[in-house]
Amino acid sequence: MAESNLSPPRAAVVNNQGVDYVISFRFGGTAKEKAEAQFEKLIVALDSVGLRTEVRDGANGSVLVFVTVRSERKLIGEVYRSRVKDWLFGVRPAAPDKETQRSLDKEPLTEAERLRIVHKLITLPVGEGGVGITPKQGPWALVESIFPLHDHDFNKVWLKDWSTTWMVSIEELEKLKDRFGERIAFYFVFLQSYLSFLVIAATIGVGSYFFLSQYSLVFAIFNCLWSVIFVEYWKRREVDLAVRWGVRSVSQLQNKRAQFVHDKKVEDPVTGEVVKFFPAWKRLCRQLLQIPFALGASGMLSALYATVFVIEIFISEVYNGPFKSVLVFIPTALLTLFVPILTSILTKIAAGLTEFENYENESSQEVAMTQKIFVFDFICSYVPLFLTAFIYVPFGSLIVPHLDVFSLTVQPFTEDEKQTAAPAFQVNTDRLRKQVIYFTVTAQVVNLALETIVPYVKRRVFRKAKEFQNNRKGFEDAGKVSDEEDEHAFLRRVRNEAELDEYDVTADLREMCMQFGYLTLFSPVWPLASVSFLINNWIELRSDAAKICVEMKRPVPHRADSIGPWLDNLAFLSWMGSISSAVLIYLFSDSTAAAGTREDLTLWGVLTAIIFSEHIYFATRLVVRTALSKLDSPGLLKERRERFLARRRFLQESLGADEETEIHEQEKIGYGAQAVPIGSSALWGKQRGPRETIIAGKEIIESNLSKKTQ
Amino acid sequence: MAESNLSPPRAAVVNNQGVDYVISFRFGGTAKEKAEAQFEKLIVALDSVGLRTEVRDGANGSVLVFVTVRSERKLIGEVYRSRVKDWLFGVRPAAPDKETQRSLDKEPLTEAERLRIVHKLITLPVGEGGVGITPKQGPWALVESIFPLHDHDFNKVWLKDWSTTWMVSIEELEKLKDRFGERIAFYFVFLQSYLSFLVIAATIGVGSYFFLSQYSLVFAIFNCLWSVIFVEYWKRREVDLAVRWGVRSVSQLQNKRAQFVHDKKVEDPVTGEVVKFFPAWKRLCRQLLQIPFALGASGMLSALYATVFVIEIFISEVYNGPFKSVLVFIPTALLTLFVPILTSILTKIAAGLTEFENYENESSQEVAMTQKIFVFDFICSYVPLFLTAFIYVPFGSLIVPHLDVFSLTVQPFTEDEKQTAAPAFQVNTDRLRKQVIYFTVTAQVVNLALETIVPYVKRRVFRKAKEFQNNRKGFEDAGKVSDEEDEHAFLRRVRNEAELDEYDVTADLREMCMQFGYLTLFSPVWPLASVSFLINNWIELRSDAAKICVEMKRPVPHRADSIGPWLDNLAFLSWMGSISSAVLIYLFSDSTAAAGTREDLTLWGVLTAIIFSEHIYFATRLVVRTALSKLDSPGLLKERRERFLARRRFLQESLGADEETEIHEQEKIGYGAQAVPIGSSALWGKQRGPRETIIAGKEIIESNLSKKTQ
Repeated sequence: MAESNLSPPRAAVVNNQGVDYVISFRFGGTAKEKAEAQFEKLIVALDSVGLRTEVRDGANGSVLVFVTVRSERKLIGEVYRSRVKDWLFGVRPAAPDKETQRSLDKEPLTEAERLRIVHKLITLPVGEGGVGITPKQGPWALVESIFPLHDHDFNKVWLKDWSTTWMVSIEELEKLKDRFGERIAFYFVFLQSYLSFLVIAATIGVGSYFFLSQYSLVFAIFNCLWSVIFVEYWKRREVDLAVRWGVRSVSQLQNKRAQFVHDKKVEDPVTGEVVKFFPAWKRLCRQLLQIPFALGASGMLSALYATVFVIEIFISEVYNGPFKSVLVFIPTALLTLFVPILTSILTKIAAGLTEFENYENESSQEVAMTQKIFVFDFICSYVPLFLTAFIYVPFGSLIVPHLDVFSLTVQPFTEDEKQTAAPAFQVNTDRLRKQVIYFTVTAQVVNLALETIVPYVKRRVFRKAKEFQNNRKGFEDAGKVSDEEDEHAFLRRVRNEAELDEYDVTADLREMCMQFGYLTLFSPVWPLASVSFLINNWIELRSDAAKICVEMKRPVPHRADSIGPWLDNLAFLSWMGSISSAVLIYLFSDSTAAAGTREDLTLWGVLTAIIFSEHIYFATRLVVRTALSKLDSPGLLKERRERFLARRRFLQESLGADEETEIHEQEKIGYGAQAVPIGSSALWGKQRGPRETIIAGKEIIESNLSKKTQ
Repeated sequence: MAESNLSPPRAAVVNNQGVDYVISFRFGGTAKEKAEAQFEKLIVALDSVGLRTEVRDGANGSVLVFVTVRSERKLIGEVYRSRVKDWLFGVRPAAPDKETQRSLDKEPLTEAERLRIVHKLITLPVGEGGVGITPKQGPWALVESIFPLHDHDFNKVWLKDWSTTWMVSIEELEKLKDRFGERIAFYFVFLQSYLSFLVIAATIGVGSYFFLSQYSLVFAIFNCLWSVIFVEYWKRREVDLAVRWGVRSVSQLQNKRAQFVHDKKVEDPVTGEVVKFFPAWKRLCRQLLQIPFALGASGMLSALYATVFVIEIFISEVYNGPFKSVLVFIPTALLTLFVPILTSILTKIAAGLTEFENYENESSQEVAMTQKIFVFDFICSYVPLFLTAFIYVPFGSLIVPHLDVFSLTVQPFTEDEKQTAAPAFQVNTDRLRKQVIYFTVTAQVVNLALETIVPYVKRRVFRKAKEFQNNRKGFEDAGKVSDEEDEHAFLRRVRNEAELDEYDVTADLREMCMQFGYLTLFSPVWPLASVSFLINNWIELRSDAAKICVEMKRPVPHRADSIGPWLDNLAFLSWMGSISSAVLIYLFSDSTAAAGTREDLTLWGVLTAIIFSEHIYFATRLVVRTALSKLDSPGLLKERRERFLARRRFLQESLGADEETEIHEQEKIGYGAQAVPIGSSALWGKQRGPRETIIAGKEIIESNLSKKTQ
């Protein structure tokens, strides 16, 4: 049976009735003719690429289209074609077995690979082997989502395993790859590696907290070194994993985006195929717009934060008038109001800019967008702390009294206080520590709670709202659809899954990256930050797993060869950390003197600290990088070995070792004769064979040396 | 005939009588028995790897052994084996043709390849396919040198071509590769690229000299940008050339050094062969010694320069006593005396250290040594200028008066002058400019002259000296050896070539690298430096060619995949340039005020300038690197294309396209039936074929939407 060849007896076949994907087609609110036409087009399109469909009522104004591959042979063919393409473009070091079936026996099809290939059939543009169904866009506006079904048995075991062990083993993590694809597996391996490194950081942190002074230089050095080693370690680990998982440079093999606008069609210099082409220099020019955008965006956001900060300082530390207890909430209110407005405007501009840069494939599009968003993330996460550390504390006593500009409005009320308040102003040195603790503990806990609870509540509320709305519109409620009895439980499950959010691994990666930033930039302020993160991430690893299993649609297993642009961001944060730590130590390390009052702090001292620290950072990074590069990477070794073996096999199969031996034979026979005529040269005639050469040479030596002794 | 298959009808065969290599065996001054035994061993060894020998009197106490390959078939076999090995280890993207002879027809054997392979037979260790003849070492102490013979016809054309054109074309340069190997070709291509870039630099320089003020910020920015672009350009060019010449990562394929000491023998994880092994971490630990060594060496050298500098300043600008005209030569004398002593001691330590680091192959050994020497080069070339620019000029007026410490000895003579001399001290602001001009013009001219004239004179003198010595010892003089008449002219030529020096491409690369350093570090002082270098290098390119042709033995054509560690050094100098330029501009740009008297110069100003400049440098480098990486590299394209084509060919040869079509056929037949049983699932039974699915779906839509409109 064809089925049995697809190695793992897929649990999904039993639990999910053999469904590969479910397409939720939402016709509610659309004209009947339009909905029917689009539905018919959808089914015909799916059929045209060999997909079998089955349809059921999705309730609440939607249709659920169940999709699977019509013939397993078709699937095998697609898998094999995909593997050969990987090899052609250098993703795989060795060719798949020449015979299709044997190739599949050797490398069994994983669920991730199966789902990925079926997904490609559904979503790739028409020219590239799919039918180009893009949910919610253009001709497919009514297609709400395309998603695989959860494998509840697997999920149950997974969650149980992870919640009952202290350390998730690498094998466990790699299992994810076969289920959810390399992209998500990369996130979890990264999180686990980071967690392991956090154990070291936490140890250093605790040691420093109890045995070293605050703002300890020793701690800062160890902390920086730790961050450098982690970044460089992960850089290698990433490559190693990509090679081991057979996805190296897979990001270059991405398929073209449907939205990509080509300038002209040219022949691909590598494959000779005619491809859509957009000149790199043109994109490069457009990318230059990123520079003013980044400057402008960070300027605006920073200005917003600075303004709010000034108001906050003023209210909390200068202002003594009435309503103070109410007014202290103004800064928070302002931020809560304006930051989302500003970032959403900027995000829209960023998206427009990214679109304008006209990337050929999804992954480079995503990278470009991520990097733009990173600018906002950086500002929103760290600027409040920067303001406190590098403006408020050192210059507070100079600047704050000038904030009287504002107090003009308050003057009538505070005439008597003012005289005493202004000169008595004292920089609140504990403010920075409190802020860091807020960002590294409170915010993390809140965030974790939000991540787990909000989607649940949101789903509940939305479902109620939708039901209400549908009832009003007259659509059937999920509970009221007349399913056949044997399908009822299954369909109810599918309807629930259709309502879940889609999992976005980028958001989780961003969270970790920004967390790493707090560690590198500010942990000298409060060395226990790493302990907080250690605990948080131990839970995060498990709660993310739960999130994927319970609160999100099952993600489509995409491939990836790294954690993408986040590595660069980590490296950047580690670098910034070397500067930030140096300045923090310089400004605050002398804890006996009250900050803000120290006369011995000079600008050139700060600058010297930066220059020193940064160059030591560069040197250290070079050393760490060199050292790590000397150590063998199991993945790269495996790749080299595979290539070597593949080539040797090819050699043995096709090259005549016989010819070599033949040469040797001939040589031996021809020895005495030395019958090779070298030009018509006279030089070579004198001595025939090494014997004669030796004799002639000895004669020369003798005649010379004997003359000497005469 | 076998000969004719080796494509280019080798001119060498005619002019050089078919000689591949000449081994100069110098027995003078050795006991007859020992000399004869070693000579016999040599001939037997050469014979054992299939080399044919012929011997003649070398005059002056030496024997000339002419070496060629005994059978051309043997050579073909060796060439083919080498090509297959390249492919096995990933140097070549595509396998050589399966049939030996056809492979040679497709890719004709170049002279460089032939000579390289014969050289390997002579010099590789016994286990690696050679007979391990290492001149002047151990058992081969009497082997003076192993060298190929010049091809005078080619050399004549080469020199004529180059001396009569303004620009040497890339094709001309690539021709060198086939003669002298990739290593030397890389040097010439680098020199030519650098020369082309110098045209731009010179244009900027001239413009700045005439239209901008001295120490112009605008010029400094352009100059820095220029250096960044050049370094990044060459980084890509290098890879491109390596790929195009088929030598990519050839440096990893180097053969083991005979001096390499292994800890144990292990199985190579890639090839499975048992190889000598020395753990990387052990080497890494030993390499850490480089850090104290570099610090110590540069400290000592800098101290020497600083001391001499102080003496120089004192004598030339403070001292007014008697003998001044004589005493001014003391600094030069001190440097001429002590710098060579110190560097030769340090070089010995460096060599010892490199040996201790125990590298496996020649190229990594050389890289390690080069990097150590670069520390000395850096100090010796730039420290005198650094001292003037960053110590003497800004702090001169503070420091110089304290040099009176020395004047104690002079006091008796100068009692009356002293009172006037000390307070009248004025920093000589033109000193820096004069020094820069000295280093960038005078020193270059002197160096060029030395490079061309000294070897000539040296050869003359040495020959005379040797003749004299040999006459005394009783060896035959070259003129007096009784050659056979038809061989006389040829043998005289060979004897002359045997006496020439060996060409060392590293020395020439070092010269260019240090020159580039003057440009990046100091050209804001005197923007015309680039013009001087442009002229100098135009001549250098040609004089180096002449040097190789006339004054040096013909070099053995080694392979290389880059200019080696010099690229890193260039990048380092470009980085340093961003710092140095910033400080120079900050210190000197306000030319109206007399330097040393300006009160507005502050330390924090300098530090700010450095931080700004350096970070702008990093940003610029990132932009340039990204921009260049987007542009296509013809070499890499070619490699990708070759690999793609090779794989596609393999596919077409071995994979059944028939199987694919078979699947399609089956599918079409099976369409109506849809006979794939998916588990025992009930879900899929309801709708048979897309028609029924569409009808079912439409029913759902209709029933929902009609309910709504009821």
